[in-house]
Amino acid sequence: MDIVCLDLEGVLIPEIWQAVARKVGDDRLLKTTRDMPVYDELMQYRLGIIAELGLTLTTIRDVIASLDVLPGAREFLDALRQDYQVVILSDTFYEFGMPFMAKLGYPTLLCHRLVVTDDIITGYTLRQPDPKRAAVRAFHDLRYTVTAAGDSYNDVAMLEEADRGFFFSAPANVTAQFPQFPETATYAELLTRIRG
Amino acid sequence: MDIVCLDLEGVLIPEIWQAVARKVGDDRLLKTTRDMPVYDELMQYRLGIIAELGLTLTTIRDVIASLDVLPGAREFLDALRQDYQVVILSDTFYEFGMPFMAKLGYPTLLCHRLVVTDDIITGYTLRQPDPKRAAVRAFHDLRYTVTAAGDSYNDVAMLEEADRGFFFSAPANVTAQFPQFPETATYAELLTRIRG
Repeated sequence: MDIVCLDLEGVLIPEIWQAVARKVGDDRLLKTTRDMPVYDELMQYRLGIIAELGLTLTTIRDVIASLDVLPGAREFLDALRQDYQVVILSDTFYEFGMPFMAKLGYPTLLCHRLVVTDDIITGYTLRQPDPKRAAVRAFHDLRYTVTAAGDSYNDVAMLEEADRGFFFSAPANVTAQFPQFPETATYAELLTRIRG
Repeated sequence: MDIVCLDLEGVLIPEIWQAVARKVGDDRLLKTTRDMPVYDELMQYRLGIIAELGLTLTTIRDVIASLDVLPGAREFLDALRQDYQVVILSDTFYEFGMPFMAKLGYPTLLCHRLVVTDDIITGYTLRQPDPKRAAVRAFHDLRYTVTAAGDSYNDVAMLEEADRGFFFSAPANVTAQFPQFPETATYAELLTRIRG
């Protein structure tokens, strides 16, 4: 029995911040880790814009509640979970991610927390440095073989640390830098690769 | 966001070996870790009886397929998973446990593997020594607060290592030896304790 670690945004659900950007009509929020690989820089940038626009957590959660998971994501997870233990490793926040977990059948989600005061997002708490790599290491310490799949820069540490790592639906500028990780484009293809 | 670690047999599902014992009509298989606290002794004892009776893995899985989870277990888990990341820590084997995971909505299960040759169970592989304690430690390494609940001797290490540990539906001879862990008798009570 292996553990499969999956990234969340771009793999199972849409990019949350991009959806928020479109909803509030501010293109600056369209940036992702694909554009700004250093996560903290990206987050401080986002929080600055959020503050400037005066967006509350409730407003953002209303946007999130209107989003669906990616087509086929639930069926893919349901198939995967019959044969593997699946853990979602994400750099999102529980406040944003949990509504999606309900739609995905509550797979285990390891991510971060926002700091919220009076419905205003004032900051965020990264659970630990290099969290995706640390999670794969923890599962290795528990004597599991780990397969991982993600779509962006912040997944590379997880793919490196895993016994097998695959890109899923990743942009060419990312995959070109890490040719050691096979690319997959559909859930069927990723499932076949995982079942190896 | 905390992680909740739950024992499986006796907490969410019936004791598998006891169910097998009743089905095949051999009372020797009724023993559990409540009776023989050293797990390996218990397992060698069970495998000896299985071999003597000539029971195949298929036969045992047929018995398991006929079992349901404990009344209210699915609803309890569904409620818990809305607010916590739930991981099942069990000393059962994936070959026995996975049919129950389907009935419980596929929570993450960390347990062991049987060694099977030509449908005959020839042995078992413990994933690692002291596996429940190791799992709680791993989640601590990932900076999670851990709450744990179990019903027997093999849960004590998990309860000790967790930030908070509760007995659930545990027999008096077990709870009397570890009075530091509060007792809970119903899912409603355990849920209230976890939400603390």
